[in-house]
Amino acid sequence: MAVILITGGARSGKSKRAEMRVRAFPGRPVYVATAEALDAEMEARIAGHRARRGTDWIEREVPLDLGEVLVASDGGGARLVDCLTLWLSNLMHAERDWEREVSALAAALPRLKSPVVFVTNEVGLGIVPDNALARSFRDAAGIMNQIIAGVADEVEFVVAGLPMKLK
Amino acid sequence: MAVILITGGARSGKSKRAEMRVRAFPGRPVYVATAEALDAEMEARIAGHRARRGTDWIEREVPLDLGEVLVASDGGGARLVDCLTLWLSNLMHAERDWEREVSALAAALPRLKSPVVFVTNEVGLGIVPDNALARSFRDAAGIMNQIIAGVADEVEFVVAGLPMKLK
Amino acid sequence: MAVILITGGARSGKSKRAEMRVRAFPGRPVYVATAEALDAEMEARIAGHRARRGTDWIEREVPLDLGEVLVASDGGGARLVDCLTLWLSNLMHAERDWEREVSALAAALPRLKSPVVFVTNEVGLGIVPDNALARSFRDAAGIMNQIIAGVADEVEFVVAGLPMKLK
Repeated sequence: MAVILITGGARSGKSKRAEMRVRAFPGRPVYVATAEALDAEMEARIAGHRARRGTDWIEREVPLDLGEVLVASDGGGARLVDCLTLWLSNLMHAERDWEREVSALAAALPRLKSPVVFVTNEVGLGIVPDNALARSFRDAAGIMNQIIAGVADEVEFVVAGLPMKLK
Repeated sequence: MAVILITGGARSGKSKRAEMRVRAFPGRPVYVATAEALDAEMEARIAGHRARRGTDWIEREVPLDLGEVLVASDGGGARLVDCLTLWLSNLMHAERDWEREVSALAAALPRLKSPVVFVTNEVGLGIVPDNALARSFRDAAGIMNQIIAGVADEVEFVVAGLPMKLK
Repeated sequence: MAVILITGGARSGKSKRAEMRVRAFPGRPVYVATAEALDAEMEARIAGHRARRGTDWIEREVPLDLGEVLVASDGGGARLVDCLTLWLSNLMHAERDWEREVSALAAALPRLKSPVVFVTNEVGLGIVPDNALARSFRDAAGIMNQIIAGVADEVEFVVAGLPMKLK
């Protein structure tokens, strides 16, 4: 078992780094996308990621039931979950209890046999946002990152495409 | 004497890390809160911090006269100042000369006998804010962090609950 | 040849660090400003940087044709380019093809004989901006930083005036 968390800012090279980490494990890699292609901007980004990854990945679109899918797909190749921040946003939009879901995910991770590499975002290093919803989201994202980092075997912070080892 | 600066983003685990550093020093720890419980959001956050810390801390609410309180409380247990960014905001709202106050604090620190652990925020790693006041604040916060880091014995940058040693 | 990239947030001490790195090379240093003094806020910031640097620097104002100027000024002292983020913003405002320009710059760097120290900004570590233009800019800035970091010999991330070595 290996749980790896790759964090960083927007366009910092997190996904590319995470793909590299997943490819280092044996077996056919599984791409778990938490994004749904709801608009053109998101569609273009998803297409760009797919073009870079190549076609040998098993692809899953999992906006909400992440823990369940990681358990169900366990025993095969390494999984790349891209990304936790969007998953959190999906949970909040669906009015799920995100704190319960994040804790359940964290509790499930140590029991997995196949590796999981998570991508997440740092969103709390700018000026306090004006609107309360954005403040709630950045608080939740920070708390989620701490919880997953707490159970991860490795944590990397990526800046300008270059990883710093946090754990 | 030990002056430690713990910096990081919102909900990065800075306060928790700072509490751990303070508890490693002998004596009854002193919690110096720069926050005033002015609204429900802030009250809830303060209550959450207090619940985690436990009840053995001496508590002080110091929105403005931080240097004076650190000098006056010197000789006892280690102090946790949470946080410098809010202190700066208080100074600016009170129309104090923040550059003079930050310099005076930095000058006072090397003469203290009991340890001080400061929590501060990184707020300059997002897009340039639209409004001039927010730009001034993030400039001031960056300058303050450089000044205090310059006189600190140790500086840590916390991401996802994990510290990186800067100094 | 040495290409050094210094990245960090607003008022993190990036420029000061970059000046120190440039001064460690022999020869008369060259200051390549990508800023144009278009308003009072910018003028004050430029004047502040100049006062700190001292008067022995050769100064160039280069809002757009950065690669050309680095090639033309090659063979003399080390160059400090402050900063890439503003250069990118200038390219976008002038409706130049920024991806082509960044790639051309990256391709030119390994052929230079005199050192170049670039300052750039991390802008992608806050909440996703509301407006599409700001999102495009932070995406472009992240991509540019990855490209230049990829060809740089050294990359440093500065927080509170203190550098972390990324490469």
